[in-house]
Amino acid sequence: MANSPDCDLKSLSPLQLFERVTEQGEKVRALKAGKAPKDEIDAAVRMLLSLKLSYKTATGQDYQAGLPPKDLVLINNGTTKEEDEDLVDPWNVQTSNAKGVDYDKLIVRFGSSKIDTDLINRIERAIGQKPHHFLRRGIFFSHRDMDQILDAYENKKPFYLYTGRGPSSQAMHVGHLIPFLFTKWLQEVFDVPLVIQLTDDEKYLWKDMTVEKAYEYARENAKDIIACGFDINKTFIFSDLDYLGTSAGFYKNIVKVQKHVTFNQVKGIFGFTDSDCIGKISFPAIQAAPSFSSSFPQIFNGKENIQCLIPCAIDQDPYFRMTRDVAPRIGQPKPALLHSVFFPALQGAQTKMSASDPNSSIFLTDTPKQIKTKINKHAFSGGRDTIEEHRKYGGNCDVDVSFMYLTFFLEDDDRLEQLKQAYTSGELLTGELKKVLIETMQPLVAAHQERRKQVTDEIVKQFMTPRKLAFEF
Amino acid sequence: MANSPDCDLKSLSPLQLFERVTEQGEKVRALKAGKAPKDEIDAAVRMLLSLKLSYKTATGQDYQAGLPPKDLVLINNGTTKEEDEDLVDPWNVQTSNAKGVDYDKLIVRFGSSKIDTDLINRIERAIGQKPHHFLRRGIFFSHRDMDQILDAYENKKPFYLYTGRGPSSQAMHVGHLIPFLFTKWLQEVFDVPLVIQLTDDEKYLWKDMTVEKAYEYARENAKDIIACGFDINKTFIFSDLDYLGTSAGFYKNIVKVQKHVTFNQVKGIFGFTDSDCIGKISFPAIQAAPSFSSSFPQIFNGKENIQCLIPCAIDQDPYFRMTRDVAPRIGQPKPALLHSVFFPALQGAQTKMSASDPNSSIFLTDTPKQIKTKINKHAFSGGRDTIEEHRKYGGNCDVDVSFMYLTFFLEDDDRLEQLKQAYTSGELLTGELKKVLIETMQPLVAAHQERRKQVTDEIVKQFMTPRKLAFEF
Repeated sequence: MANSPDCDLKSLSPLQLFERVTEQGEKVRALKAGKAPKDEIDAAVRMLLSLKLSYKTATGQDYQAGLPPKDLVLINNGTTKEEDEDLVDPWNVQTSNAKGVDYDKLIVRFGSSKIDTDLINRIERAIGQKPHHFLRRGIFFSHRDMDQILDAYENKKPFYLYTGRGPSSQAMHVGHLIPFLFTKWLQEVFDVPLVIQLTDDEKYLWKDMTVEKAYEYARENAKDIIACGFDINKTFIFSDLDYLGTSAGFYKNIVKVQKHVTFNQVKGIFGFTDSDCIGKISFPAIQAAPSFSSSFPQIFNGKENIQCLIPCAIDQDPYFRMTRDVAPRIGQPKPALLHSVFFPALQGAQTKMSASDPNSSIFLTDTPKQIKTKINKHAFSGGRDTIEEHRKYGGNCDVDVSFMYLTFFLEDDDRLEQLKQAYTSGELLTGELKKVLIETMQPLVAAHQERRKQVTDEIVKQFMTPRKLAFEF
Repeated sequence: MANSPDCDLKSLSPLQLFERVTEQGEKVRALKAGKAPKDEIDAAVRMLLSLKLSYKTATGQDYQAGLPPKDLVLINNGTTKEEDEDLVDPWNVQTSNAKGVDYDKLIVRFGSSKIDTDLINRIERAIGQKPHHFLRRGIFFSHRDMDQILDAYENKKPFYLYTGRGPSSQAMHVGHLIPFLFTKWLQEVFDVPLVIQLTDDEKYLWKDMTVEKAYEYARENAKDIIACGFDINKTFIFSDLDYLGTSAGFYKNIVKVQKHVTFNQVKGIFGFTDSDCIGKISFPAIQAAPSFSSSFPQIFNGKENIQCLIPCAIDQDPYFRMTRDVAPRIGQPKPALLHSVFFPALQGAQTKMSASDPNSSIFLTDTPKQIKTKINKHAFSGGRDTIEEHRKYGGNCDVDVSFMYLTFFLEDDDRLEQLKQAYTSGELLTGELKKVLIETMQPLVAAHQERRKQVTDEIVKQFMTPRKLAFEF
């Protein structure tokens, strides 16, 4: 990037200008935090002011941290979206808001239901214990038919859990754990069987990757998933590439779904085009089929029509909207859903984490030192530009990534509330908040690594063998 | 249909008029053959002359038996075709010519090669015996890379055969036997293993049929196929719905093909539209995958890249044009092909037989009496309107369905040539030719039924069990 703000600023779009200002602001903060020489700081501040002026000239608005320019129009499925609409589908999550996606709007757009206090209370009564902090803190915020699952549970009727992962690379990051940590809790409190789909076929279709590599990633990812502590007697993990060739029921359900969904429909739901390969176009049926218990004759002893509950990030909902649409037409019950928010990238809540950018995430393979460096260097701060301003006006927890991460991983409600108040009031500085996060994440990742080491190939094989699970239907 | 030719003839299309004339001509012939009262025959002849006049008025041409009007424009894949171009794809075969599809033009359009005398002679040298009459008589008339198969055979390199069937109903007709009779001969003379795909998933996707029914038809059809006399030690018959869930290699090849074919491509090849279900759109990969030996790890002992030879009717070529296009891109050898002409409906060579119209075909379940009645009543004749005319001008073997059927089923070359000459010269009458056909088909179908009775469920199960076949690779 050029050092002079004047050289090419006129050719930049408002969004590019916004990013330049944001970047320069970060630079100023870093110089100040690092106690850099005064003249260096002054030069950086002048550049920042100049950039802000250019931004105002271009947009007619003052620069506001975390609020990109309004003309950032996002494109989804070939149609121009409303200016302030977030882009959310299985391959893209994009928002113009530093607080992240507007989840209330998403609930309206997707036609799901909010997980409200009533539902959380009902869950608490049903299971006789305090609901998981992911529920209490709105991390799982939306659902479809969760009340039916509770009806079934209260009437001693069986159900099963289904979640999954697209194994795109060997290394998983902490955000990938969210659905698994929550699913493990659901498995424990409801005492139900669980199937976990590894869509290695999807990754083969979407990425520049061989079938063999995709399958290898699936097996490697299975180790991290198993390390979350699932019950081996109640959990079946499968790779599509592997299981499709070993199950009598899976393909039959796939072809049933494929008969009842047209290209027009997947075009509308997923934004496929005529240039997409036919594998992508028909793939949604493969993610749909595990919602039906007849896809797992070994597990359920051939019993069909067992209700399914799917905990997943909200970006996977399009698959299951489609599944719920098809289910009654092929004589199957609609799966129920619990949707989570996205896990933010270290750089901010505008996008979800990406396994392909090592600095966007804390990986499950990171050392304590790497974790510390990443958080200190990359975690987007809701703090003020100077210590003086911060003390005076306080930090903004709504956009601060360190605070967001603590919402996910700091289980102690009181401590989290204290931190929030202290940061908002300006009592707690960004560096101090980051320190709390570092001290939370380091032991968490280290413990995961320790558990993963225990997961032998033999254990993976057991989890991935189709078999009757320890549950009576 | 109204009795008066005048009441509504003006509203009929040239093609409808053509059909009315043809029908009336048949009626006149039937009355004469049945020695009906003279006044009844005279009335029918007057009607025929009146219809012929209407036809000439409407089209400006004289009615010619077997030559429908030139303005019959056929539609293929949403585009208007050339007037005289035949429509040939896996679901439609339509031509305006009573002689049937113009196969020489099809070879040019499809880009395949003609099976010429040189190739037939080479096959004879390679196998050391007279080639099958299907080859000698141009019933298998086109190929792709058959010379490579002969190179391989002459160099003692292995190859395998692959053919298949869409099990659309319980009853098969004699036309369905053509690829199987020929494949059985290939298996015998080349001594190679054979896989037979029953695309019950395709039938489920295309028809109003349950998965269970499609699978049941597949098993029933397997009995008729087995009754053709395949070697149980060298033949594997599989239903897609069944085998996909039992093979480690099949789905992997399917997904590889699916990654390398776009919707645009299948739209161009098969005429799919946006309103087609995603199952149809991705199905071509399922018919492609058995062309690769790695789809059958049990059979070939895990050995890959064994060359494949596919005998099939030419309407299946679009699947394998696509397969041959994809093969090198997924590191597989291109399958070679042998294409047959279509088996004509009793009503004429304009279309291929249909299992859904009981009168369009001789079914493998027909009794001797049904066979006799069908041939006498429905077999389109190339004979003249009256015995006198026939004796004088002779019959036309090119459009006579009885003669066409004899080309398929009468193995004696000399006898067939005698019949042709006698019919063409007018010496042999239509009724006499039909009698030869009846006497050929009755024992053939009866023998088939006898063999089919021997095919127990246990034998079907053996054929349909994935296993190592008796062949060293």
